[in-house]
Amino acid sequence: MIDKFFKPKNVAIIGASANRKKLGNNILVNFKKNFKGKIYPVNINEKEIEGLRCYDSVKDIKEKVDLAVVVVPAKIANIVVSECSECDVKAVIIISAGYRESGSDGIILENHLKAIIKKDNVRVVGPNCIGVLDTYSGVDTIFSPYERMERPKEGGISVISQSGAFGTAFIDWCAEHRIGINRFVSFGNRADVGECDLINFFSKDRKTDLIILYIEGPKNGRELMDALKNTTRKKPVIVLKAGKSDKGAAAAASHTGSLAGSYKIFSSAMKQCGATEAKTLDELFDFTKVLSKLEPAKGNRVAIVTNGGGYGVLSADACIYAGLELAELSHKSVTAIKKAMPEFAGVHNPLDLIGDATEERFRVALENCIKDKNVDIVVVFVWALGTTLDSGIAETIINIARKSKKPVICGGVGSDYTKDILLALENAGIPTFPTPLRAMKAAKILYDYGKIRKL
Amino acid sequence: MIDKFFKPKNVAIIGASANRKKLGNNILVNFKKNFKGKIYPVNINEKEIEGLRCYDSVKDIKEKVDLAVVVVPAKIANIVVSECSECDVKAVIIISAGYRESGSDGIILENHLKAIIKKDNVRVVGPNCIGVLDTYSGVDTIFSPYERMERPKEGGISVISQSGAFGTAFIDWCAEHRIGINRFVSFGNRADVGECDLINFFSKDRKTDLIILYIEGPKNGRELMDALKNTTRKKPVIVLKAGKSDKGAAAAASHTGSLAGSYKIFSSAMKQCGATEAKTLDELFDFTKVLSKLEPAKGNRVAIVTNGGGYGVLSADACIYAGLELAELSHKSVTAIKKAMPEFAGVHNPLDLIGDATEERFRVALENCIKDKNVDIVVVFVWALGTTLDSGIAETIINIARKSKKPVICGGVGSDYTKDILLALENAGIPTFPTPLRAMKAAKILYDYGKIRKL
Repeated sequence: MIDKFFKPKNVAIIGASANRKKLGNNILVNFKKNFKGKIYPVNINEKEIEGLRCYDSVKDIKEKVDLAVVVVPAKIANIVVSECSECDVKAVIIISAGYRESGSDGIILENHLKAIIKKDNVRVVGPNCIGVLDTYSGVDTIFSPYERMERPKEGGISVISQSGAFGTAFIDWCAEHRIGINRFVSFGNRADVGECDLINFFSKDRKTDLIILYIEGPKNGRELMDALKNTTRKKPVIVLKAGKSDKGAAAAASHTGSLAGSYKIFSSAMKQCGATEAKTLDELFDFTKVLSKLEPAKGNRVAIVTNGGGYGVLSADACIYAGLELAELSHKSVTAIKKAMPEFAGVHNPLDLIGDATEERFRVALENCIKDKNVDIVVVFVWALGTTLDSGIAETIINIARKSKKPVICGGVGSDYTKDILLALENAGIPTFPTPLRAMKAAKILYDYGKIRKL
Repeated sequence: MIDKFFKPKNVAIIGASANRKKLGNNILVNFKKNFKGKIYPVNINEKEIEGLRCYDSVKDIKEKVDLAVVVVPAKIANIVVSECSECDVKAVIIISAGYRESGSDGIILENHLKAIIKKDNVRVVGPNCIGVLDTYSGVDTIFSPYERMERPKEGGISVISQSGAFGTAFIDWCAEHRIGINRFVSFGNRADVGECDLINFFSKDRKTDLIILYIEGPKNGRELMDALKNTTRKKPVIVLKAGKSDKGAAAAASHTGSLAGSYKIFSSAMKQCGATEAKTLDELFDFTKVLSKLEPAKGNRVAIVTNGGGYGVLSADACIYAGLELAELSHKSVTAIKKAMPEFAGVHNPLDLIGDATEERFRVALENCIKDKNVDIVVVFVWALGTTLDSGIAETIINIARKSKKPVICGGVGSDYTKDILLALENAGIPTFPTPLRAMKAAKILYDYGKIRKL
């Protein structure tokens, strides 16, 4: 039944509004953009909204409704859910806030909602959530207008978030970085559908090859571990835990009403289940980027290629810190690269191509590192400010990386000129990172998944 | 004499070139842009370069030369330095590579250079370096053209870097983030002028109020500690150490020929001297940004203001992790803020103004947090995707933060719409950070410097 949230034939938007400042309008407008099925606005006060015939009640819709989106105030939302269930609607998304997170009356409302769900066998996402985005079907209950929040392109990542604000900001970030999303669910107060239902669903979902989970407090630790264990054998799951500290946990309790529990136990459970914990938001972004763009690595031996000596030193440190090894370049590679270098220049990993490096020097170094049987991953840090290296360096790296079966990861620091080069690399599918450490931590994730897949 | 590197009355560029692809041309062109003194190109093969009369030798220049920049090949660079010294030039920057870093012949050349320096009482920056930038005087030996590397505006930061590539990338980053620079020195092989000379000089330099040091291996640990101890009492010093691991240290040895030494000892020495160690490049950027934009904090009690519940939870975690405390808001603040919030909404730190927050709600929360005697630092995380909050939020925050004597730090995640808001804040002097943890670590630095200054 979870399927109906993502691929409904039609949708009823209950609480649809003609007022463009209201969520009930924003959601309708966003559905109209990409949703392929029929849209039924429901509002007793209107005859027509945004050019669509408006219904007094979900009961007046002749066709069987697959998905209902509820945007009416909490005090009448439960009644609406009951009506949906009378019409055999099996999937309901309740955007409305004013439930458990808002105090004692809200708790009563939410308990009543749960009773309806149990009795009527309807599945509910929410309440107090931002709902669902499916880039393929066009289901889009995110009320943020397109001018404020880009929608990501179609892709293989499914995102599960207990926080709506965090989740939408994350997929807005994905859109900006051209990282494709399959499905997104913000489940808010989790009166019914929670992280386990969704992990199990995405585990079997052929279009999902990476799952992202933002969680404050799991509904049931044991169930979460089971769901993760089953899933991580097939596809990576990256988890960001919020509410790690006592103060954070207290904030989580008043945010989504969930119990954060002990972070230490959570963290070791994640390890046990084969899930990747992102300890910081930067890690979440970086791990998402690298896993969405590259295949896992077959080993942990990294070749570092740079034309900035300082970057070489920082990258070597970062490589060791991240738990990777510096590759011992083969004699053949060293000999070949030596030929392209000025006399007396040392050739060893990290490969310092020196400040006057040309594209040709990069080409020789990269091609040899990729060919070298002692190398599993290649990390390139470009110093673009030297005059011998023009912006064609991006094209050179792209052409070589495209043919490589080994992961090639890039980075650089600087303003517009450098950024344009990094952007060209990103647009060609090469992940770039702003610092050597972030590049190496991302490389480590590729190595970890290589181990899991027994490459 | 160090002063002559930054404020020379004139400069001789020895190895100046008419060929626009050569460093000797790039440097001349960059001097012409902003240097206020007289420029003397020296090249025996040319009569005129870039419209300036060219001299056969530094000896032919009639005026006494204050600063010489040497761009000739290493094999004749020492001879040129001797000539400079014959003409009583007291400051020489040797850009040329091919010294100690390049093997045994280079070591002989460098030892010979050191002998000249000792005998002739001339001061040398380099060799194998990018040299000096002074945003006030226009001294600019950085050979990167303006199209590739922005020059930062005038400001209070002085940067000392053992790596030219790293140093230039860092100040390019400063330029992009509108962070002002006073002086920059890349000292390369450090045949003479090193980090201690420069720290001691910047310590007394009235225009320098923050010193950044990138170091692979200190010349003399004891001297460095003395220099830092004397300086950090007066102004902050941020240190990034490269060559922490054995592999990194080996890379450093072949990069600038320096001995990296034990990182643990280095790190504890930094603490002892009151210097701030940036453990990562992100920390270096973030600490530089926050110290360049805000005054130190009087205490460690942070008020978190957000309209994204998830951000509140993440920020509370980050606050504790960074070693700060969540402020206990006064009864007066809580009462005032409660009035601006929807009924039933909880008012406690982190302040979750909820997804439908307006500018007005932010205004009330911010003003009260800043006024609150229990609060030392305010951290604001904006979720800009909700429809009730328009882009005017930047103006609201700016107006309040400008009047605040307490530090106000902001952050947010998202694509263009969110970025425009963050950019407006940055341009108004409010530092912004991409994640709650990075914002809190930056806040912690303000608290640390408040303690040092006994605020």
